[in-house]
Amino acid sequence: MRRIALLTDFGTRDPYVASMKGVIASRTDAPVVDLSHEIAPQDIFGAAWFLRTVERWWPAGTIFVAVVDPGVGTTRRILAAERNDKVFLAPDNGLLTFVPSDIIRSVEDEALFLPGGSATFHGRDRFAPVAAALANGMAIDRLGPLVRDVARLDYTPGSIVAIDHFGNAITDIEPPPGRFALRAGERTIDRLCRTYEEGSDEPFLIVGSSGTIEISVRNGSAAVALGLRRGDRVAIC
Amino acid sequence: MRRIALLTDFGTRDPYVASMKGVIASRTDAPVVDLSHEIAPQDIFGAAWFLRTVERWWPAGTIFVAVVDPGVGTTRRILAAERNDKVFLAPDNGLLTFVPSDIIRSVEDEALFLPGGSATFHGRDRFAPVAAALANGMAIDRLGPLVRDVARLDYTPGSIVAIDHFGNAITDIEPPPGRFALRAGERTIDRLCRTYEEGSDEPFLIVGSSGTIEISVRNGSAAVALGLRRGDRVAIC
Amino acid sequence: MRRIALLTDFGTRDPYVASMKGVIASRTDAPVVDLSHEIAPQDIFGAAWFLRTVERWWPAGTIFVAVVDPGVGTTRRILAAERNDKVFLAPDNGLLTFVPSDIIRSVEDEALFLPGGSATFHGRDRFAPVAAALANGMAIDRLGPLVRDVARLDYTPGSIVAIDHFGNAITDIEPPPGRFALRAGERTIDRLCRTYEEGSDEPFLIVGSSGTIEISVRNGSAAVALGLRRGDRVAIC
Repeated sequence: MRRIALLTDFGTRDPYVASMKGVIASRTDAPVVDLSHEIAPQDIFGAAWFLRTVERWWPAGTIFVAVVDPGVGTTRRILAAERNDKVFLAPDNGLLTFVPSDIIRSVEDEALFLPGGSATFHGRDRFAPVAAALANGMAIDRLGPLVRDVARLDYTPGSIVAIDHFGNAITDIEPPPGRFALRAGERTIDRLCRTYEEGSDEPFLIVGSSGTIEISVRNGSAAVALGLRRGDRVAIC
Repeated sequence: MRRIALLTDFGTRDPYVASMKGVIASRTDAPVVDLSHEIAPQDIFGAAWFLRTVERWWPAGTIFVAVVDPGVGTTRRILAAERNDKVFLAPDNGLLTFVPSDIIRSVEDEALFLPGGSATFHGRDRFAPVAAALANGMAIDRLGPLVRDVARLDYTPGSIVAIDHFGNAITDIEPPPGRFALRAGERTIDRLCRTYEEGSDEPFLIVGSSGTIEISVRNGSAAVALGLRRGDRVAIC
Repeated sequence: MRRIALLTDFGTRDPYVASMKGVIASRTDAPVVDLSHEIAPQDIFGAAWFLRTVERWWPAGTIFVAVVDPGVGTTRRILAAERNDKVFLAPDNGLLTFVPSDIIRSVEDEALFLPGGSATFHGRDRFAPVAAALANGMAIDRLGPLVRDVARLDYTPGSIVAIDHFGNAITDIEPPPGRFALRAGERTIDRLCRTYEEGSDEPFLIVGSSGTIEISVRNGSAAVALGLRRGDRVAIC
């Protein structure tokens, strides 16, 4: 079964997601699911890392539609990448950096777009009808030519890649064997807990659900307690 | 296929939407989609404009359920309007101002409501079971008599009708042919961009996805930068 | 029809809900609905009361998955309670206090969990696949043994049990027959309204949609106006 999974920075209080879903519902009965619409405005890295974290859990046949698109309406391309029988539609702005693929097309068949579409809302006018067409079984090579030189975000491993809403500071560093400590700014944290409940209101390390090290405080915000922000450099020590 | 599309000011942290969906799920297998539950509390205009913006993108057979209902439990009626093979259920408080229809019924058949329902939550006790009945194919004239004198919001074109979460100030003015400028309060803005990327951190005009003029700042909030609010008068000049 | 209804404190801006839904979608086509993901972090009482409020509106066959789980990864059990042909999956931390059942199992069959799962995200690694298996018709006694000594929250009736996002202060007290007043802190409120519209910007009492007394202010927040908080004691007087 094909399904469409949406990831945007549109929020849910404006009519943008509802308009996209209307276009999709007008064209296909495939299920539509929300991954998140709470990506911070224009936060391409946040969306890219989100997509990396979740896509592995979704089954073959999923069509991911990721729209964080400050360049909408310009000559930036719309990409359709294939990977493990999943399709990823996204603007060519680095959003697919962490779901690399060798089979990427530029979506160029204008017959698939809404007629008379806007220059400011390709989510509704291009991404939605293209996703619906794919969900209805259209061959992906209808979309446009294969391309190679796609945008990638600058990214150097060794940083906090997300602050979650619990206040956990999530790094991209996998735990080494044996004992270790983590350096974040001026501070070194060497207490490792297996569960949050083992922790306390002193910051501790924990291996999070994506397999990387997180800095946590039990029932509180490590990010607030330590003044941590996404992008802060961290290192094993 | 019939589907039910929900628009409320209930938010998602309280049990209200979940209760409505339970009532619907108890009565029909029709798909239920969220348009938004983030309309500001009691903001009838916000809901009315939202509905105007999105309804055109949804297919025939959609049953819109719009509940922003400060008069719940009083003698205010519940309306069912028909338009392009879509149905709009809403309290008779102006919420349907921007989706005008000549075929509007007052929903009065109490056999359709939950027995012993509350005076404070018609979303769950009346709107939900009525929407489910319609989704199951019940004829709309079962609902109640045709009515004519329905509530309309006072509305004079020429204003900012929404501030979206990106900070764009959305007007209800379509762009005239040729060059133009827009007056908003003390300020006149005459720079017109086709895309956000053409813009800068100086406010500019752009034709938004609903075909009207918006005031924007690239990757920032025009509303904050200029102190704009919904309802502010604007005019071409 | 079986459906899966999710209630968590995960929020929607992080990848947690989207990962859970991916695991479910990988294993079943049963519909998945969101009750709420906006329970405050680690707020077991808030989730328990939410579940109490909504579960009655959902049909037989619903599989509730409630994950507010500060003890994740410890020896705390995962419970599966049966009640009116519905199933409730939750950590054994009091979350099921207000949906009591005599048929509760400890979920222990590790073959149902994701292999190599994490110690910090049982929502994805245990709750999701177990819910999917139940939705696919697996017998519930496959999950594990019946248990009796489950966690219950300390709870003494006579308090504000929720502040909703409109600012209504919701108590757990049903209205007595005849005239009455409600004492909350230093203040006694004796004005009873049947609808919000009868009210004013002075606090008043109203019988809310769950049948208990609420303290409200028309088109405003009673909680802010009176400084009310969840847990505050209230009494009929």
